[in-house]
Amino acid sequence: MRQRNLSRVLHTLADGGPLSRAAVAARIGLTRAAVSTLVDELLRGGLLVEQGPGRSGAVGRPGTQLLLTDRGPCGVGAEIGVDHLAVCVMDLRGETRVRVTHETRNQHSDPTAVLALLTSMLRRATAEAATAGLRPAGLTVAVPGLVNRGSTTVLRAPNLGWHGTDLAALLPDDLGPVTVENEANLGALAELWSGHHAPPLSGPDSFVHVSAEIGIGAALVVDGELLRGAHGFAGELGHLPVRPDGRPCSCGGRGCLETYAGEEAVLRAAGLEPGPGVRIGALAARCEAGEPTALRAVRQAGTALGIALSGAVNLLDPRQVVIGGALARLAPWLLPPVGRELARRTSVATGGRSTPVPVTASPLGPDGPLLGAARSAVRAALDAPGELLRD
Amino acid sequence: MRQRNLSRVLHTLADGGPLSRAAVAARIGLTRAAVSTLVDELLRGGLLVEQGPGRSGAVGRPGTQLLLTDRGPCGVGAEIGVDHLAVCVMDLRGETRVRVTHETRNQHSDPTAVLALLTSMLRRATAEAATAGLRPAGLTVAVPGLVNRGSTTVLRAPNLGWHGTDLAALLPDDLGPVTVENEANLGALAELWSGHHAPPLSGPDSFVHVSAEIGIGAALVVDGELLRGAHGFAGELGHLPVRPDGRPCSCGGRGCLETYAGEEAVLRAAGLEPGPGVRIGALAARCEAGEPTALRAVRQAGTALGIALSGAVNLLDPRQVVIGGALARLAPWLLPPVGRELARRTSVATGGRSTPVPVTASPLGPDGPLLGAARSAVRAALDAPGELLRD
Repeated sequence: MRQRNLSRVLHTLADGGPLSRAAVAARIGLTRAAVSTLVDELLRGGLLVEQGPGRSGAVGRPGTQLLLTDRGPCGVGAEIGVDHLAVCVMDLRGETRVRVTHETRNQHSDPTAVLALLTSMLRRATAEAATAGLRPAGLTVAVPGLVNRGSTTVLRAPNLGWHGTDLAALLPDDLGPVTVENEANLGALAELWSGHHAPPLSGPDSFVHVSAEIGIGAALVVDGELLRGAHGFAGELGHLPVRPDGRPCSCGGRGCLETYAGEEAVLRAAGLEPGPGVRIGALAARCEAGEPTALRAVRQAGTALGIALSGAVNLLDPRQVVIGGALARLAPWLLPPVGRELARRTSVATGGRSTPVPVTASPLGPDGPLLGAARSAVRAALDAPGELLRD
Repeated sequence: MRQRNLSRVLHTLADGGPLSRAAVAARIGLTRAAVSTLVDELLRGGLLVEQGPGRSGAVGRPGTQLLLTDRGPCGVGAEIGVDHLAVCVMDLRGETRVRVTHETRNQHSDPTAVLALLTSMLRRATAEAATAGLRPAGLTVAVPGLVNRGSTTVLRAPNLGWHGTDLAALLPDDLGPVTVENEANLGALAELWSGHHAPPLSGPDSFVHVSAEIGIGAALVVDGELLRGAHGFAGELGHLPVRPDGRPCSCGGRGCLETYAGEEAVLRAAGLEPGPGVRIGALAARCEAGEPTALRAVRQAGTALGIALSGAVNLLDPRQVVIGGALARLAPWLLPPVGRELARRTSVATGGRSTPVPVTASPLGPDGPLLGAARSAVRAALDAPGELLRD
């Protein structure tokens, strides 16, 4: 119970600090005295610092503000993308302190080689963080594939060509507990935790978060919680059938969304040959220039995405749809057709409201999964204050 | 806290009774002594009875089994269907004690007239229940439409022609608290509570429950909880686009599942003119007789349903799919094409398992919503033992 209360103080300051002791007490519903005892323990352990009028000596004076330390424990996030690796070190306040990115081709790769490169990046990043007094308290890795719920094993990552790969065995064991998570889930959690989508007064937050790199994934946040699915595989928006007798998909199905709105499909429809360096950025530039083939390709992708999202909205009744990942860069041209399909196809699920569910582009864009991974590691550390105080 | 513990004793006996005091204590994690005090209060209040060796006088003797009373408080469920009304009185043990059904045409009806008829049925059913010593402790009404989350107002029920109708104002106020709920949700809850889908060892229950009367609805149970959606409108499977440029639907969209697998669509495809008395039963009889047009119509409906369910499975990763409502009667002919589409289109979401998510027909069939409504009223009563003991 004490550990739980210590953790609640830490999370309250992570989400809304700096705050006075009285403000912390009000938010978590404990007495001022109980909170002061908890805060003293956290100050002694170096997890909190004080600032404001009471700073020098007069501990606990009214007006003294508490905040999380920017030294000591930190969360480490890593991202294994199809064409890049990235590492992010985040302090307990949620600030990115070190970030390392490496462009590389991971399609049909050897996991041992990829994880060796990622390990060297982790070593570099944490060594740099150590010079600022930061020590890793946990590592979360984002992968473009299915991860068995509660495990560190990538069951399938088709775009990497990995099957049944236990990443924990290939990663350093001295950075704290290792978590492996689907990139779309972490992108959605980054959105949820960013406060861009603060719950409206009428209820907790619910949204469908689309993320796309090479494939198209999604994550579903329902009443402020990630919906993981029975096996951990929920959110496969890319394989919703949008043209049931349409193009064959690598999954064995036909007419999956990915075959119309996946990066490769959109680039080809726009007359661009997908390849190293030829990515959504190039397509966005052509749209910007008003190039008709590019605009048509994005419009068609938006229509397909809107059909698939209509299915998701009819099933889930979310409060909003957020487009993240690479597709977010195409928002000015992609969102209108998405909105048109939603308006046509979701009138029942929106209770006959004249406007469909709002669709917005994520301000985090392609950074979502990496930031979500680092933030997830920080939050896991704040869940276990006993571990942090022991160090 | 005491109310909560009284409620836990009641629910434990509702789910698994009869049980000894020791077995109840073990299941809810309280001491035998604490449970005995709670049980004594519930025995005095007439909510529990004892049976077994200790029955006559020797209260609390080992071997004495506790169970809920079959007299006193009861739950009342009601169903407003497109062509029928039904009322069910259920005792605290979950046994149906009175059931009244009335065939009637409620399409494009006047809610005041329908609710007046339903009220007279409620009066008849509760009067009959009173002769068995039962008194209503709450009423839950199932409706084929959208109900604002947490309200008693039917926002839209297209097949009834109702809009913004507050049912509580049109129902008796002396049957206890009134709850109004979408029929598909209650059908799914009836499945969940029936124990047909007891959670497997690997985790809590998650399933997609399809229910169809005139329209096609669904309800999503995720980790043992109903997913209601931000506004209460989740589960509109009938409006998933299965042929995006296909038949116009009354919702304003095109190619919605309902236009291919809704009752009217299937009957017409089988050469039957939908109308009073001409329903799924007649179609099932033709399939039974091997009539080719009927078999083809059901196969096409199954393909459309399988395409829509592939979308749901890709998004939600449920443990199983349950077909309830009227469509359950077509299971022998409907399930094979549904399974075929799922096998083709959900290989990613099933993690490459060779078998797709299992699809079964609900043993409750069209009774689900009514039984779910009554059981929901019983469970709400067990949640508030203070109210029951006060009476």
